[in-house]
Amino acid sequence: MDYQLYYWTGIQGRGEFVRLALEDAGARYVDVAREAGNAALQPFLDGERDGARPFAPPFLASGNLVVAQVANILHFLGPRLDLVPEGEAAQLQALQLQLTIADLVTEIHDSHHPIASAAYYEDQEEAATRRALDLRTHRLPKFLGYFEQVVGRGNGHALGAHSYVDLSLFQIVRGLDYAYPQAMAALAPTIPQLRRLEARIAERPNIAAYLASGRRLAFNTNGIFRHYPELDGGIAEKD
Amino acid sequence: MDYQLYYWTGIQGRGEFVRLALEDAGARYVDVAREAGNAALQPFLDGERDGARPFAPPFLASGNLVVAQVANILHFLGPRLDLVPEGEAAQLQALQLQLTIADLVTEIHDSHHPIASAAYYEDQEEAATRRALDLRTHRLPKFLGYFEQVVGRGNGHALGAHSYVDLSLFQIVRGLDYAYPQAMAALAPTIPQLRRLEARIAERPNIAAYLASGRRLAFNTNGIFRHYPELDGGIAEKD
Repeated sequence: MDYQLYYWTGIQGRGEFVRLALEDAGARYVDVAREAGNAALQPFLDGERDGARPFAPPFLASGNLVVAQVANILHFLGPRLDLVPEGEAAQLQALQLQLTIADLVTEIHDSHHPIASAAYYEDQEEAATRRALDLRTHRLPKFLGYFEQVVGRGNGHALGAHSYVDLSLFQIVRGLDYAYPQAMAALAPTIPQLRRLEARIAERPNIAAYLASGRRLAFNTNGIFRHYPELDGGIAEKD
Repeated sequence: MDYQLYYWTGIQGRGEFVRLALEDAGARYVDVAREAGNAALQPFLDGERDGARPFAPPFLASGNLVVAQVANILHFLGPRLDLVPEGEAAQLQALQLQLTIADLVTEIHDSHHPIASAAYYEDQEEAATRRALDLRTHRLPKFLGYFEQVVGRGNGHALGAHSYVDLSLFQIVRGLDYAYPQAMAALAPTIPQLRRLEARIAERPNIAAYLASGRRLAFNTNGIFRHYPELDGGIAEKD
């Protein structure tokens, strides 16, 4: 195997952005914890391995390298899997867009855990209700409007041609459809380009095969994208 | 001028991580908004310029390139300013560490704005009190403990030699000293390596000159690091 992906079992989580790239490219990889259990991650997280210690999963091992942080992993994989246009300018732009996706992912996560990531949702539900309202009414329109313009300018692609950024935008749209269906319905008229990108990605043969496989876990309320009906609603402040 | 830095006036903010790299290297740059006002940022943010549209400041222009996202800017500048060791492995590791710093910066910001970044602190102070308690008791010990080990293994440097990551860690320590002095006093026994790194960075001639100049703004309660005494305290849950 060329790559070993390390991420928690049972959820898509941040690992999914890496999985989609590996799957789309048909890379040879093993999803280590799904074969050996979550304990396989611990020696890396405890700093017992040589090289760069990951602060958190996901991380990817390839030969002697261990690379952590989703955007960094995709920056590493992009040229190797032919998932980023050639040249420094394009690769910097890809990284910039992926980092903005990472910011959005954090905001989506924090909409159900605004106080403490290690505490129960139920113990921060009131704050979550307020943060989710802000996410729906201000942050999602701003982020998705930004990516809509980027994709519109890129002839249907974030970078003018297929890249790992398109795969991550697919995941963002699918995740938000699951977590915030009412908000996404209200936003639909504003994101036609992102919808077309999502549909096109889903039809790519390797992605279609992956989505139909057991390797693609269902979204659930342990992941980043969580469907709590009380957090969903329209995109106007009054909702 | 080789570089144009675009960031809001009046605060250090995320722009400071870029400024420290430019200043340490003695790069020729202009801090555009401080000369021309914040309005100079708007055409970029509105997507009226060619190339990669920034989602938010800071962004850096160099020739025809516009690069946004702090970690991406530093990844771009690192080799050009001799602020990262040579080779792909070291540069990936630098990016990984800088992205973990970016995550910490977001958590520090959200400790005073856990509900909505655009809303007043006073309207989210109760939630902020809870989030800041979690930051002090769980997140700061975890993040700073991680960086302490990284610097300990790197012979006093994040990467075994001087880099932009060291400069950013300096800024983290200084910012936390301002925002959370009680928590940092309690954490002091656990971060001797980070303290030595901070002292060493402050003595670098270009950094010492910068810190003594009018270009280094004081920390204040409009930036990322904010001192609100009601959010500070010890690092044990009972505090």
